[in-house]
Amino acid sequence: MRELEERILRDGRAIGERMLRVDSFLNMRVDAELMLRIGGEFADFAREVRPDFVATAEASGIAPAFATALAARLPLVVFKKLPKPPEAGGYACARVRSYTKGTEYCLAVRDEYVREGERALFVDDFLAEGEAALGAASIIEGRGAIVAGVAIAIEKSFQSGRGKLDARGYAVRSLARVARLSPTVEFL
Amino acid sequence: MRELEERILRDGRAIGERMLRVDSFLNMRVDAELMLRIGGEFADFAREVRPDFVATAEASGIAPAFATALAARLPLVVFKKLPKPPEAGGYACARVRSYTKGTEYCLAVRDEYVREGERALFVDDFLAEGEAALGAASIIEGRGAIVAGVAIAIEKSFQSGRGKLDARGYAVRSLARVARLSPTVEFL
Repeated sequence: MRELEERILRDGRAIGERMLRVDSFLNMRVDAELMLRIGGEFADFAREVRPDFVATAEASGIAPAFATALAARLPLVVFKKLPKPPEAGGYACARVRSYTKGTEYCLAVRDEYVREGERALFVDDFLAEGEAALGAASIIEGRGAIVAGVAIAIEKSFQSGRGKLDARGYAVRSLARVARLSPTVEFL
Repeated sequence: MRELEERILRDGRAIGERMLRVDSFLNMRVDAELMLRIGGEFADFAREVRPDFVATAEASGIAPAFATALAARLPLVVFKKLPKPPEAGGYACARVRSYTKGTEYCLAVRDEYVREGERALFVDDFLAEGEAALGAASIIEGRGAIVAGVAIAIEKSFQSGRGKLDARGYAVRSLARVARLSPTVEFL
């Protein structure tokens, strides 16, 4: 997506070789119009992979996933990040390790929102080591549902997430594939 | 908002006298079209209170706030909930106690996204004791910006939040004002 790449070049800030700050337009101060166009791109992808619902992990996945749900006229299911598995029954959980934050959390959703045989399109703002996407996939598949596709705004292609998703045969659509951050930001 | 009240009556579930579960349409499985209409209502309110940006607290505030930002053509600023204040400088923080979860967190945003003299419309899915709204207000006012208004999807009017916001003179718009949950859900 040309517009997203240009915006990353203009307003993104590489911190060292692995971190890319895009909080001025993507995840802290959100450019709502850009996000709507990102959702439109993901809705095109949805027409190919035919999901029954859009899934995401809170919190920064919610805006692009909601924009996708709107554009594709699908429901949105938000997986919660909890410090530990919920005490109440009726939740599907996956333990996820966040490499960026060095913490572990429990990705959780009520069973009734991911049903057997349904097709899910997982949407997120970033793909790095793939922890959130794989955690979501394990919840979806653990419920007997299907990962129809994974839609990512910014993929850090120099990290391992994309390879892991490809190896599992998932259909992946990334709108900006960052090949390197240093000495200058370059795309695949 | 008639549609939201009817949806609460149809799909909401009161748990005891104080908890209302609406995760089947508002915050875990999100009805994107309903959320867009909620954003439209808040955009009407925005025309009255003339904000420069929409602000919210992650995570369940993001969908209604994003819908508002889209409808009102405003940028969206997302305040993060962190376990402790960020180590890096350049953040405005407020300590917030969550009564529902019994935990304390730090609401935080980068200084540059809340500027002196700007008018903020704070949007959230729920208003109960008002902790998130008052924490956000303290950040906004601490930065020399102005709370133009507070827009809430579901207000639990039997809790103290609304009174606190009124006492501080904020313009508040709640789309569904729940007077009581038990023995049946009733609205003001």
